[in-house]
Amino acid sequence: MNSAMHDENVVQTVLSGAPQQSIRRRELIDVAMGKTPAETIIRGGRLVNVATAEIYPADVAIKGGRIAAVGDVGYTKGPKTRVVDATGRFVTPGLVEGHLHQYHSYLGVTEFVEALLSHGVTATADAFYGPGIVAGIPAVRFFKQAFESMPMRLIFLVPTLSWLQNRELGLTPTEGVAAAELKDILAWEGCYGLEEPPYLPVVEHFPEFLDLFDETLRQRKVITGHAAGITWRQLQAYAAVGVTTDHESVEANDALAKARAGLTLLMRQGSGCFDVPEVVRTHTEFGIDPRMLAFCADLASPEKLMTEGTIDHAIRVAIAQGVAPVRAVQMATINTAEVFYAQRDFGIVAPGRFADLLLVSNLRDFAIDTVIFGGTEVFKQGRFLLKLPKTVYPAFLRGTVKLPHPVTADELTFKVALDRKEIEVRVIGVTEGSLETDERQERLQTQEGTVPAAVDRDVLLLAMIDRFGKGTGTGLGFVQGFGLREGAIASTANAVCENIVIVGTNPADMAVAANHLASLGGGKVVVRDGKVLASVALPICGLLAEEPMQDVMSKFNRAFEAITELGCPLKNPFSQLEFCFACGEIGNIKLSEEGLLLIHPHPHKVDVVVA
Amino acid sequence: MNSAMHDENVVQTVLSGAPQQSIRRRELIDVAMGKTPAETIIRGGRLVNVATAEIYPADVAIKGGRIAAVGDVGYTKGPKTRVVDATGRFVTPGLVEGHLHQYHSYLGVTEFVEALLSHGVTATADAFYGPGIVAGIPAVRFFKQAFESMPMRLIFLVPTLSWLQNRELGLTPTEGVAAAELKDILAWEGCYGLEEPPYLPVVEHFPEFLDLFDETLRQRKVITGHAAGITWRQLQAYAAVGVTTDHESVEANDALAKARAGLTLLMRQGSGCFDVPEVVRTHTEFGIDPRMLAFCADLASPEKLMTEGTIDHAIRVAIAQGVAPVRAVQMATINTAEVFYAQRDFGIVAPGRFADLLLVSNLRDFAIDTVIFGGTEVFKQGRFLLKLPKTVYPAFLRGTVKLPHPVTADELTFKVALDRKEIEVRVIGVTEGSLETDERQERLQTQEGTVPAAVDRDVLLLAMIDRFGKGTGTGLGFVQGFGLREGAIASTANAVCENIVIVGTNPADMAVAANHLASLGGGKVVVRDGKVLASVALPICGLLAEEPMQDVMSKFNRAFEAITELGCPLKNPFSQLEFCFACGEIGNIKLSEEGLLLIHPHPHKVDVVVA
Repeated sequence: MNSAMHDENVVQTVLSGAPQQSIRRRELIDVAMGKTPAETIIRGGRLVNVATAEIYPADVAIKGGRIAAVGDVGYTKGPKTRVVDATGRFVTPGLVEGHLHQYHSYLGVTEFVEALLSHGVTATADAFYGPGIVAGIPAVRFFKQAFESMPMRLIFLVPTLSWLQNRELGLTPTEGVAAAELKDILAWEGCYGLEEPPYLPVVEHFPEFLDLFDETLRQRKVITGHAAGITWRQLQAYAAVGVTTDHESVEANDALAKARAGLTLLMRQGSGCFDVPEVVRTHTEFGIDPRMLAFCADLASPEKLMTEGTIDHAIRVAIAQGVAPVRAVQMATINTAEVFYAQRDFGIVAPGRFADLLLVSNLRDFAIDTVIFGGTEVFKQGRFLLKLPKTVYPAFLRGTVKLPHPVTADELTFKVALDRKEIEVRVIGVTEGSLETDERQERLQTQEGTVPAAVDRDVLLLAMIDRFGKGTGTGLGFVQGFGLREGAIASTANAVCENIVIVGTNPADMAVAANHLASLGGGKVVVRDGKVLASVALPICGLLAEEPMQDVMSKFNRAFEAITELGCPLKNPFSQLEFCFACGEIGNIKLSEEGLLLIHPHPHKVDVVVA
Repeated sequence: MNSAMHDENVVQTVLSGAPQQSIRRRELIDVAMGKTPAETIIRGGRLVNVATAEIYPADVAIKGGRIAAVGDVGYTKGPKTRVVDATGRFVTPGLVEGHLHQYHSYLGVTEFVEALLSHGVTATADAFYGPGIVAGIPAVRFFKQAFESMPMRLIFLVPTLSWLQNRELGLTPTEGVAAAELKDILAWEGCYGLEEPPYLPVVEHFPEFLDLFDETLRQRKVITGHAAGITWRQLQAYAAVGVTTDHESVEANDALAKARAGLTLLMRQGSGCFDVPEVVRTHTEFGIDPRMLAFCADLASPEKLMTEGTIDHAIRVAIAQGVAPVRAVQMATINTAEVFYAQRDFGIVAPGRFADLLLVSNLRDFAIDTVIFGGTEVFKQGRFLLKLPKTVYPAFLRGTVKLPHPVTADELTFKVALDRKEIEVRVIGVTEGSLETDERQERLQTQEGTVPAAVDRDVLLLAMIDRFGKGTGTGLGFVQGFGLREGAIASTANAVCENIVIVGTNPADMAVAANHLASLGGGKVVVRDGKVLASVALPICGLLAEEPMQDVMSKFNRAFEAITELGCPLKNPFSQLEFCFACGEIGNIKLSEEGLLLIHPHPHKVDVVVA
């Protein structure tokens, strides 16, 4: 660790580059004109110019966190000008993340920002919809402000899902964010538009959204899209209402249709979704203009954030698929910035923009040597150089796991009439590597009016428990694909519902898991024989950790080990679990606390027992 | 003429597509989903998709003036759906003009719109700065509203020059538009940003502009630039303050530097400026990404507007220079729309956008067969199909040529002390094909205390007369390059000053010219031996004609003939005359009603007489 860089002044300098700070353009003029010296010069590198798609030698003069001049800027060097040597390296813009939910990483704000910066991401788009579902508009405002006090350009978006949430599938919503509040949030300073209002609800079920869309466009803001599994006609309708992007393409021809309809493809390369190799074929094979391609991660585990990275990894994947390096860098920077009309602030190394830059040793491997944010080196040769202030969370974000009484095994026992010997049930089918679920049917033996798991056939018990005092109770069902031989796994974080969700081999372990989560204020837990084998506390909204990311990752790793010990072969068991439950239109069959749902052709409740 | 198309209902249908009309997105959804039929289908064409840079067969379904679906849209055809046959033709977006001053064409709003539409331009950027200089903010509002009632997408910008005008060179301003009003105009609905605040005043002289810049960027609007003749350092400063475009590049290396600094190059191909062949080398030779290139005309005479066209002509020029046709169409459509963050409304044929389309017979020649605006054919096979409503101009736009008394020859006579036999004077040098002026010196003989023109050496008399009652009087000087052997030419339209300007061989003809202009309420005039040989009345602000464009063009042609008869060899004598006078930083030496100015290194008054 470079202790000199841990100086508080350095942190302050970096933070002063945040977008909410006033911009002193007069200072940039004076530096560019040679009247006052630059604060910092990046010297000797080869610039990757993402505007012109050229690579050539150029130096960068910086003042007040922004770029004053790019080229032969030697004349801006004064006696106190700091010089960063970029010899032998490429200078690229800081990477821009087009769609990533911080809360799905479980990391706190400070830890998340450090992880992104350490992989070259200096701008990220987020709406904090999960905290919004759990704790409403004050939570959204808190996270927005927390990010804005960090060395990170926040592309803040309206969390449409904080309102849609359970409504989307006809279920009882949390208080969350009210419809009228969405328009209020849209007008917040630093708001760039709407976060992924999904196709179905907008176009088919909640036409009042169209007013919000019109207002968004009127304010010259953007509507980012979420076009999972829609038909060609639905795509036309979705584009027609003003949607700008899609991050849900998994197949090249489908992606091509979207690009042709004017949607920028935010190619997803995240935890559990590896879409770049397929979607980038629109460019490498079909030859479309690369201006329509950009990157996002959408979901990223702490391990992914800390090890392989997100947008930097996507660049490497794209290059490996045959994309020219300069095009891949465009997809990771200016193309994304242009989606949000943010190219005047970031996504390109040019005068007036924030001095968010990377020094990259090798363009083809995209090996990041140094990350510069607002003109200050924040990461260098494998080491994070800042000590970011700890995020202090307010009390209203805690204690959000509310159970009227401790959960009992009896409540989690699936019951049928005493005279039934066996029953045919709908089972949620889970497949490794896919977040889609499929409907299966299995015959299960009963025991005195109860239906235990059929562990030998991998038909396990599934439960969702209301944790918001909505009074909606508990939903029970069956699932296949987790492979547990014993014990239970549970979580309070599950997209859109954010209830307690549990998969297990027996109701007793499942009840222990639920009650342990309540005692933690939320988190993840693995239980066997009534004992907690591993847990990760997520006390902030029941969604986020407070601990250092290394500790969070260790605890997750311990939990993954424990899950494997229980017999589960899945690589991402928590994500797979999450998507077994009511969560938008992804997948065909879902469990909620109000019962089992089939999603297509339109969401509707069905009985677990078929016969 | 197709009389059916002259039906008033057709005009109304077209006008309902204007951007200020409410957008009924629900109707687009219903058409896209096959629930209600399209109003119009464009069938059988090959789509030039400017998002993906592909060309492929695709049909277009239209409803309420916007596009509902693009592709196999046969299912949207109902019994009343009108079908436009595009077989054998290419379907492109309507062309987008990035920077063109309507008032420099002298045509009224109706006539100008018809001329643009007849050449495929369906969107145009303008700020009406000339009318703003003459008649203030009410004039700007009038022209904005007049355009918005026409079948044309107006990219309205704030007329920063209506404030800057004479101030830029330290001269007495007209009332024009006040500084505080610029911020008011910025907030007008339908305002996309600022029109060309030039480098020098902004960065060097009027730092208060930077507040307006910050507010513009805060409102997610754009600052279009005007970077004529600036140094590399000045370019860095100009980009640093947030400027987005430049339309003043005349040399490829200079243009390259601007593109590298993040400025989109609006390559100019207008009357008297033919920059595309040179500037497009940044792409064809230097290989920069074509996303940084777009087109504009800036200035266009009635003849140019009616015959060779503007943006359509620029496409042809670019293709002739080796630009791939699909790239040239991108430069004329989506690239320009993206500058203004308008790509959700126009610049691409995709769902949700206005149904502004061209059917082009031959992409390489860009031969426009049909122009469709808001889903209605407005031009077809050489014929304009609409009868546009006549623009009715309010009284305050008339009678703007105010002289305290008739101008006398004596006032226009250059006088020196009686004892001077000859004098050395500064002469404004004019060169065919360039709007730049250069300083020359000539020795002139005097006659009883007056200095007549030296017609044999083409040293003629030049005068500017205040026509706004500012009390600034009359400025006199000398010019070389017009080649008049007799008579005088005069005009009330001259960028930024908009005073009466005259070049002549003798003060008597010059006085006749000035007084005739006053009697017309403004215009252009050619005089010989005290008689008016030709004139063009421009009674609206002294800038614009009210007559049909064919009549305006005929009168201009007659004036050009008369000017040639007087001995002038220049191709664009009125433009050349205009730029001899105080008009921004273009050129080195200028005359104003307050005296002679040298522009570089900074504008300052100098004496006409050197010795």
